[in-house]
Amino acid sequence: MYISVIGGSKCSKEIYELAYKVGREIAKRKAILICGGLSGVMDASAKGAKEAGGITVGILQGDTRIGASKYLDISIPTGMGEARNVLVVKAADAVIAIGGEYGTLSEIAHSLKMNTPVIGLETWDIGEDEFGKTRIIKADNPISAVEKAYELAKK
Amino acid sequence: MYISVIGGSKCSKEIYELAYKVGREIAKRKAILICGGLSGVMDASAKGAKEAGGITVGILQGDTRIGASKYLDISIPTGMGEARNVLVVKAADAVIAIGGEYGTLSEIAHSLKMNTPVIGLETWDIGEDEFGKTRIIKADNPISAVEKAYELAKK
Amino acid sequence: MYISVIGGSKCSKEIYELAYKVGREIAKRKAILICGGLSGVMDASAKGAKEAGGITVGILQGDTRIGASKYLDISIPTGMGEARNVLVVKAADAVIAIGGEYGTLSEIAHSLKMNTPVIGLETWDIGEDEFGKTRIIKADNPISAVEKAYELAKK
Amino acid sequence: MYISVIGGSKCSKEIYELAYKVGREIAKRKAILICGGLSGVMDASAKGAKEAGGITVGILQGDTRIGASKYLDISIPTGMGEARNVLVVKAADAVIAIGGEYGTLSEIAHSLKMNTPVIGLETWDIGEDEFGKTRIIKADNPISAVEKAYELAKK
Repeated sequence: MYISVIGGSKCSKEIYELAYKVGREIAKRKAILICGGLSGVMDASAKGAKEAGGITVGILQGDTRIGASKYLDISIPTGMGEARNVLVVKAADAVIAIGGEYGTLSEIAHSLKMNTPVIGLETWDIGEDEFGKTRIIKADNPISAVEKAYELAKK
Repeated sequence: MYISVIGGSKCSKEIYELAYKVGREIAKRKAILICGGLSGVMDASAKGAKEAGGITVGILQGDTRIGASKYLDISIPTGMGEARNVLVVKAADAVIAIGGEYGTLSEIAHSLKMNTPVIGLETWDIGEDEFGKTRIIKADNPISAVEKAYELAKK
Repeated sequence: MYISVIGGSKCSKEIYELAYKVGREIAKRKAILICGGLSGVMDASAKGAKEAGGITVGILQGDTRIGASKYLDISIPTGMGEARNVLVVKAADAVIAIGGEYGTLSEIAHSLKMNTPVIGLETWDIGEDEFGKTRIIKADNPISAVEKAYELAKK
Repeated sequence: MYISVIGGSKCSKEIYELAYKVGREIAKRKAILICGGLSGVMDASAKGAKEAGGITVGILQGDTRIGASKYLDISIPTGMGEARNVLVVKAADAVIAIGGEYGTLSEIAHSLKMNTPVIGLETWDIGEDEFGKTRIIKADNPISAVEKAYELAKK
């Protein structure tokens, strides 16, 4: 089971805390955490997962590991810039979006295009689909977010 | 001057017509049209541009040119799947979004991340930025969309 | 018909001249020239093709058009670094390699993997295949290189 | 420390055995094994590393994990086709090439372009560089290959 956590490289203390707790919960449930491997939400979720004994993977924008979170077990430099966003979500059975800006929105869109469920915590609102279902599944707290990710995960 | 037109590979007759007219207008104003090179909005905009004497470029998802619009002067197969969406907008000084689903939303998000203006015709509404400005610049018709694209284009 | 010309961004005067002549010949025969869009062999071939009235396309490594040859009709920034080498050859029905270093060798290998014929002028020698055929088809001069490219082009 | 093992998805029993032993040795020395994640040399090296208690990562060509080696701890589908070859070697401090065809040659070339040392076992011979040094460092056996990889690894 792979869960990707997406969100900004800059974030408030509150968002950092949410991401940290999401990371912890992912690790407790034995899923592998995938993220973009940098600062902010990426770093927070990796820290949470690492401290709870989980496995963490960062898929980096740059050519090198410079600037990578120190809480990654595995880091993969891609040198592909924004195109790496596609890889971050392609690896996931479910995606949890926390806060975030345009980069996060691109990852949400790529996920939904791939039919990968996206759970949201304080993130973008992109309305409902043609069946009246919220496109991003809203969660109220980190534990519920990870629960929903497990429940809705592909396969 | 490069303008990318983004939108779904499937679309209604009305959306096809809008995309066709946007393509014509882009060609009249001597910009190069970039698109994803397939059917629907991509095909329509390329057709419009070609018929008005413009230059059209399609950046394709697949490994080959199979399924490409016949209105392309240049087609570039990438074999990169959704990651090619990043390329479609990276080539643009301005982007015009017409209709569209999640793929289009990903392209809108990538554009805004790169500070490339996005003009919208009957497309996603993703609200306002922190300064109260609509993130996607709304246009009422194809001519106005291309006018705005010229006005707001990067450099 | 698309022909990609590959080779180093730095090259000797002799190699530059060869690439220029290859570009001219490609244009005379009405093929579209694809290249990596930078200096050296890329610039030379684009210059040759442009001066003979051809169409030239550069697929760039960087995020922007900075550093691109001025002889390109269409330039496509990719922001993907070396991964753009795959795109340069994927677009081609035949590839002509002129001089070159490791980047060129990677493009030769990607071409052969895709069953795209590679014609070589003063470039790498990578021996013969299991049937005793030279992997890179050797040409003696620019005109012969383009002739062979036409003769051997995929479909 | 990350070591990438590259080679064909089809290989002889002898080559499979070499790759298996290289994988074991990488794990014993506590490096993380990166590979393309499919069959043949990729599967063999992952099997060897896993059985010796190591960590294994596969960076896959396809959109899904179908066809991935069962000896991977982490698998990353990319959906990028051959462009994923660049990622397989970009992640490495040193690369070990075993057997292989054109895909492997492309990875060797990308590695050398990035100044990442390539150690070879029964693989391509691409001659010497301008200083008379063999471009691919030849190893006689799996243990020596991994030793050389450690010795020559970037930073």
